[in-house]
Amino acid sequence: MVYELYYWPTIQGRGEFVRLALEEAGAAYVDVARGSEADGAGLPAMSRVLQDPDNPRPAYAPPFLRDGDVVVGQTAAILLHLGPRLGLAGDSEADRIWTHQIQLTIADVVSEAHDTHHPVAIGLTYEDQKTEALRRAKAFREERIPEFLAWFEHVLTRNDGTHLVGAALSYADLSLFQLVAGLLYAFPKATGAVLRDNPRVAALHGAIPERPRIGAYLASPRRIPFNEQGIFRRYPELDG
Amino acid sequence: MVYELYYWPTIQGRGEFVRLALEEAGAAYVDVARGSEADGAGLPAMSRVLQDPDNPRPAYAPPFLRDGDVVVGQTAAILLHLGPRLGLAGDSEADRIWTHQIQLTIADVVSEAHDTHHPVAIGLTYEDQKTEALRRAKAFREERIPEFLAWFEHVLTRNDGTHLVGAALSYADLSLFQLVAGLLYAFPKATGAVLRDNPRVAALHGAIPERPRIGAYLASPRRIPFNEQGIFRRYPELDG
Repeated sequence: MVYELYYWPTIQGRGEFVRLALEEAGAAYVDVARGSEADGAGLPAMSRVLQDPDNPRPAYAPPFLRDGDVVVGQTAAILLHLGPRLGLAGDSEADRIWTHQIQLTIADVVSEAHDTHHPVAIGLTYEDQKTEALRRAKAFREERIPEFLAWFEHVLTRNDGTHLVGAALSYADLSLFQLVAGLLYAFPKATGAVLRDNPRVAALHGAIPERPRIGAYLASPRRIPFNEQGIFRRYPELDG
Repeated sequence: MVYELYYWPTIQGRGEFVRLALEEAGAAYVDVARGSEADGAGLPAMSRVLQDPDNPRPAYAPPFLRDGDVVVGQTAAILLHLGPRLGLAGDSEADRIWTHQIQLTIADVVSEAHDTHHPVAIGLTYEDQKTEALRRAKAFREERIPEFLAWFEHVLTRNDGTHLVGAALSYADLSLFQLVAGLLYAFPKATGAVLRDNPRVAALHGAIPERPRIGAYLASPRRIPFNEQGIFRRYPELDG
C-alpha cells in the first residue's frame, strides 16, 4: 500500500505536517505533485483530482491524501486517519481524540501565522497588505505566540514532560516541532524569547530532529526549505 | 448519561454547532456556563475546569464537552466524538471522516468570518481595527463567501442534493445551516446574492428549521439570538 499525498510542490505549508508523519513512520508514499508530468504526476495530476467533476468527495483545497479507495482532505483529518495506521496516535479512543484536539489547536496557530502576512486577503500580495500585516504581526508576536506556546508547555508538563500524549511519540509531537520550526523561521526574535520561558517546548523542538528517520528526512532534498511562498515567511519587519 | 457542554453563555459562537447536534438528537445535556452559580454552575464552573492546574487534558479555549471521564475540546473534535453517539455521522469510517472533513472546512469559514471584524487582534475592539475590517470584509464577501458556498453546493450536488453525506442527516448538515444563518445575519446582502447562485445550500438552510426538534430549539430561549459579541456580527458597513 503506497499512500498518495497531494500538496503544493514548492512549499512546506500544511502538507508538511503530513509529510513528517509519513517520514517518521517510514511509510511508503508518493508526493504526487512533486513528481514528473512525464510520469503522469506533477501539478496537473493534482488539478485533475481537485477539479474532477465526478469526484463525489472533493477536497476544498490541498493537502489531501489517497489511501486506496479513501480520499481525505484537511490536514488534521488526514492525520486523524493516518495516526493509528502509522502508530502515531494513542491506543485508546480518548488518547486519539486528545491527539487530534492538540492538532486542531496547532492548526489554529498555523492559520494565525499565515494571516500575519495575509491579514486582508489571500488574493493580494504581501506588499498590498503590509500596513495591516505590521499591526497583526505585532499582536501575534506579543500575545498569541506566548499564549499558545504556554499552553503546549502546560500540556507537556501535565503529561510526562517530553510527549504531548501518553508515553510515546504521536503526530502531535511532530506537528509541534514543525510549528516551532516555522515560528522560529518567521519570527526568530519573538519566538526565541518565548521559548526561553517554555523549556519543554524548546526541548521537544530540539529532540525531534534527533530521531533517525526525521533527521534523515530533514537532511534530504525531500525537505523543502522554508521560503516566502509558504505559511511561515521571514519578513524581518514583522518580527519587531 | 448527561453531556456537559461548556461554552460562553451569552453567544452562539462555536458552541452553537455542538448545541444544534445535541438538540437534534434530543440528547440530555447541561449547558453548564448558562446555569446558576448557586447550583455550582455558571461561568465560575467553566473557569474552574479551564484553569484547573491538575487537569491533564486542558482545552485551550471553550467550547469543551464532558462525556463521563472524557473531556473533549475544539468544536470539530467534539462533533467527531458525538457524531456516532448521536446518530449524526455516517456508518462507515470513510463517511465519518468525510463528515469531519466538511466540518473542518466549515470551521475555516467560521474563522474567516470572525476575522472580518477582528482582522488585527482579538484583544482589540472592532472600532480599533475598523479600517482593516472594511478591507478584509470586502475580500471575504466578494471572494470567500462565493468560493466556499459553491463548494458546499458542489458537495450537495455530487451527493443526493439534500444531504452533505450519504442519505441521512449528519452534523455537517446542521453546521452548514448554522454557517449560512450566521453569514445571513452578518452579511445579509452579500450572502443573499450568493445563495441565489447556490440553490441547494439555500434549500438546506431552509429545511433544517423544519425539523421538529431544531424548530422547537430555535423557538426556545435556549437559542441565544445573534449579537455583536459573537462570531457573526452585523456591522452594516462590512456588508458593502
